[in-house]
Amino acid sequence: MAISKLAEFEPIFFPKTHAVIGASNSMTKFGGRFIRTQINFGYKGKFFPVNRDEPEIFGMKAYPRVTDIPEPIDFATILVPAPIVPQVLEECLAKGVKGAQIITAGFSERDEEGIKLEKAIAATAKKGIRVIGPNCFGIYCPRGGLTIPPGENLSKESGSVACISQSGGYGIRIPRRADGLGIRYSKLVSYGNSVDINECDLLEYFYEDPETKIITGYIEGVKDGPRFFELLKKVCKEKPVIIWKGGLTEGGARAVKSHTASLSGQAQVWDALFKQTGAVAVNGIDELMDTTMAFLKLPPIKGREFCVVGGGGGIGVAAADACEKAGLPLPVFPRELQQKLLGIVPAQGASVRNPVDVGSPFPPPPMLKLVMDAVFTGSDVDSLIVSEIEMSSVVRSPQADMSRQEMLSQNQLAPIEARNKFGKPVIMVLPVESNGSEYAESESARRRVADFYMQQGVPVFLTLERAAITLSRFISYWEHRDASQ
Amino acid sequence: MAISKLAEFEPIFFPKTHAVIGASNSMTKFGGRFIRTQINFGYKGKFFPVNRDEPEIFGMKAYPRVTDIPEPIDFATILVPAPIVPQVLEECLAKGVKGAQIITAGFSERDEEGIKLEKAIAATAKKGIRVIGPNCFGIYCPRGGLTIPPGENLSKESGSVACISQSGGYGIRIPRRADGLGIRYSKLVSYGNSVDINECDLLEYFYEDPETKIITGYIEGVKDGPRFFELLKKVCKEKPVIIWKGGLTEGGARAVKSHTASLSGQAQVWDALFKQTGAVAVNGIDELMDTTMAFLKLPPIKGREFCVVGGGGGIGVAAADACEKAGLPLPVFPRELQQKLLGIVPAQGASVRNPVDVGSPFPPPPMLKLVMDAVFTGSDVDSLIVSEIEMSSVVRSPQADMSRQEMLSQNQLAPIEARNKFGKPVIMVLPVESNGSEYAESESARRRVADFYMQQGVPVFLTLERAAITLSRFISYWEHRDASQ
Repeated sequence: MAISKLAEFEPIFFPKTHAVIGASNSMTKFGGRFIRTQINFGYKGKFFPVNRDEPEIFGMKAYPRVTDIPEPIDFATILVPAPIVPQVLEECLAKGVKGAQIITAGFSERDEEGIKLEKAIAATAKKGIRVIGPNCFGIYCPRGGLTIPPGENLSKESGSVACISQSGGYGIRIPRRADGLGIRYSKLVSYGNSVDINECDLLEYFYEDPETKIITGYIEGVKDGPRFFELLKKVCKEKPVIIWKGGLTEGGARAVKSHTASLSGQAQVWDALFKQTGAVAVNGIDELMDTTMAFLKLPPIKGREFCVVGGGGGIGVAAADACEKAGLPLPVFPRELQQKLLGIVPAQGASVRNPVDVGSPFPPPPMLKLVMDAVFTGSDVDSLIVSEIEMSSVVRSPQADMSRQEMLSQNQLAPIEARNKFGKPVIMVLPVESNGSEYAESESARRRVADFYMQQGVPVFLTLERAAITLSRFISYWEHRDASQ
Repeated sequence: MAISKLAEFEPIFFPKTHAVIGASNSMTKFGGRFIRTQINFGYKGKFFPVNRDEPEIFGMKAYPRVTDIPEPIDFATILVPAPIVPQVLEECLAKGVKGAQIITAGFSERDEEGIKLEKAIAATAKKGIRVIGPNCFGIYCPRGGLTIPPGENLSKESGSVACISQSGGYGIRIPRRADGLGIRYSKLVSYGNSVDINECDLLEYFYEDPETKIITGYIEGVKDGPRFFELLKKVCKEKPVIIWKGGLTEGGARAVKSHTASLSGQAQVWDALFKQTGAVAVNGIDELMDTTMAFLKLPPIKGREFCVVGGGGGIGVAAADACEKAGLPLPVFPRELQQKLLGIVPAQGASVRNPVDVGSPFPPPPMLKLVMDAVFTGSDVDSLIVSEIEMSSVVRSPQADMSRQEMLSQNQLAPIEARNKFGKPVIMVLPVESNGSEYAESESARRRVADFYMQQGVPVFLTLERAAITLSRFISYWEHRDASQ
C-alpha cells in the first residue's frame, strides 16, 4: 500500500522547522523580503536562515549550510541562484529535510544548461526528498503559516478550497481575486516546472485532505497523462475538480513551452479528458472564480429547469438567450402560473412566460417576493435567478428617501426568504452598472450588496451570461457524478 | 428625391415647442415625473402640458387638448393610457404636430385589443405625423434638451455615438454604463414596438447626421428585412454600425414576442446579414461598450499582427490563447528582436517570443518603455496590448513609498509615449483584481488609471479575452470596408 499522501506532505504544508536557504538581511534582496514576508504572515514554527556570509539574519542565528543546523528540519525554501541549487538540494537530502520548494527560476524553461540543472534536481529528489518547483512561488497554507513570496497580505483564514497553479502569476492573482468573494483556501501550491511534486501528487493529496472540499487549478501541462486521467476519474467522484487549462491554442502552447517548459497537449485530448472524468473545465480566471463560488455556495442542483426574474423586457430577452446558449433553456410556465403572475406584475410592460419581467428594475415590494412565491409554488423549477433588479441605491438620484431605502431593503431580503422558504437555490446577478472613477461609490454600494448575498450563501454573478455558463457546468458535474456512482 | 431625414427629424430631436399629453402635477404619477425630469435635464424650448382636468401644471398653463394650444407644436410626448392614445394622436395630427413619442405600453406586445389600438396608431401616422413607440422610452438627445423618463441624470454633453434601442431597459442601461467610459451620445432612441419610425428610419437619419460618427444598437426584430439589409450595406461604408441582436435563440425569440411583439428572425439569417453588410455583431451590453470604445478611441487598424506585453508567464499563456481564439494569432518575433529583448527583460522568469513576459506585474522602469521601443522598432506589429501590468498602487501594501509611486507613474506613461512616438495604437488591459466592498478603494484606484488612459485616447479593457474579441471585430470592420469600396 502506498504511503498516505497526508502523512508525507504534513512536514511540507505544516513545517515545525523551516530553513530558508539564500536568506538575507537586505530588503532589496529576494532572500530578505522572503523571510520578512513569512514572519509578517505569521509563521509559528522555527526559522533557520542559511547564508554563507552573514552570521545573523533579522536577529536570528544564520548557518552557512543547512547541514550546520543543529535541529531536524522539516522544510526548506531554496532561493539561491540556479547553478547552486543542485548542490544545496543535495545538502538538504543529507540533512534529512522532508521537502523543499525551489523558488529560483532559470531551469528547463530557459536553456540547455537549465535542463541539465533540472535533471540533477530530479535525481536528488528521487533519493528521498520531495521537491516543489523550480521556477515557482511555492506554498500558501494559512494554517501552516506559509505564504507565497508576493502573498504577505493574503488571508490568514483557512478554507475548504485547494488550488494548484502551475503559474506563479496566477498563484497570487487567484487568491487575491478570491479574497473579496469570501473564497478561502486550505492550501495553494504554485508548482512551476514540477520536477518532482506535480499535479498528480497534489491531486492525490487534496483527495485525501479532510480540509479540502473543492479542488481548483491552473495547469499548463501534465507529466503523466494516463495517471492524471485515472486520478481525476477517482477524485471527481468525491470532490469537484475545476481546471483552467492554459495553452490550448498553438500560440498558447508555444507560450507554455517558454513559461514552464511543459508539453501542452492537444485541445481535443483535453476535451475528452474533461468529458470522461467529470472534471469541470473553465476558461480564464473569471470563470475559475465564478465556478469555485458556485461549488462553495450551492447545494447540488440536479435539474436544468431554471426561472429567471428580471427587471425589464430587454433583460428578459438577454436572459433567455444567455440561458439557452449555455444549455439551460427556460421552460415556459404552465398557463395557470402565468395567470397568477399576471395578477402580480404591472399590467403593462411586463411578461410572465419565463423569464418573468417585473417591468422595471425597481419593482415595488412585495412584488418580487410574490413572484418568487408563485414561481416556486406553481412550477417545478430547480432554481431561480434574479437578474438586474436594482438592489443598491442609485448614485445621483435625488429621490433616495427613506421609503426608497425601505423598498430596497425589502427587495434585498426577498431572494433569501424565498430560498429559505422553498429550499431551492436562488442566484443573484448584480452587474457593474457604472464605469469610471466618478461612479466609484456606486460600485462600492453594489459590492456591499454582493457581499451581503455571498455571506448569506447566495452566489452572485456579474452577468447573466456568466451565471448561466457556470450553472450549466455546475449541473453537468453533478450529472456526471450521479451517472458514475 | 426623398426628403432629407435630417430636415424631417429636426423638430423631433430639437423641438422648439413640446406638448406633454398626460402631464400631471403629481410626482407620484408618471405624467408628473416625466415633465419634472425634462425640466431638470434642461430642456430649453417651450413646454405645453396637456391635461383634461388640471388648468396649471408646475406653474405652466395646461391645455385640455393639444388642439387648444395657441402656438405651433413641433413634438408631443404621449403618456395617456393605451385606449385613449389613438384619439390623442389624431388630435396631434389635426394640430399639425411634426412628431410624437408614445411612451405608454399595452399594445401589440400585450393582447388582441392592443393590436387593434396599434393599427389605429399606424393609420394616423401614415396620414402625416411621425411616431416613435409605443411601448418605449423615446428620445435622449442632450443637445435638444430631451431625455428618456429614467434619464434625468444622463450626461448633458453631446457626443458622436448614436444608439437605437428597441428596449427601454437597455435604453437607460447603455448610456449609464457608457458615461464613465467617456462615451457620449448624439442621440439615443428607445423605439419599442416601432409602429412608424423604425430601425431603418433611424439608420437613414444617423447616416446623414453630421454629429453621429458611430451607430450602435440593441435590436429585437426588423420590420423590413430587405430594406434593412440594403441600408446597412450603404451605411457601413461610411460609418461603423455595431448591433447587439437580442432573441437569437428559441427562448430569446419567445421573450422578444412578449416584449416588443417583434419577429426575431433566424440566427443564420442574421449571421449572413452581418457578414455581407460589414455591420459589427456584438453579444450583450459589455461587448457593446467594448466595441463602441474601440471605434471611438482607435484609428483604423488594418493588420492582425499584434504584440502582447504582460507581467507574468501564465499571463502570456492566457494572452496567446485569447488572441488566437479571437483570430489574432500572435506572430513569433524575429530572432534579432528576441535577442534584443533578452537584454531588457529579467534573465529569469521572462520570455521574449511574443507574448513578451516582463517577468512580473511590476517591471522596474524603464523596462516597459524599452520593451515597447524594441518591439515597434524591430517588428512589423500593427498594434500592441499591455496586459495586466500593475498601474495603480496596491492596497494593503506597506511598501507604497515614493519610489514605488514614481515607478508606477513612469510605467503608466510608457504606453502613451510609445503610441505617440511610433504612431501605432496601444491598448490597455486593466482587470478588476479585487472583489468585495473591502477592496473598493483598490477598484477606485484602478478606475482612476483607466480614466487616465481613456482620456488619452487609449482604450481600456477588463480582460484580454474581451480586448482580443473586440479588436478582431474592429479589424474585420475595416477589412470589409476596404474590400467594399
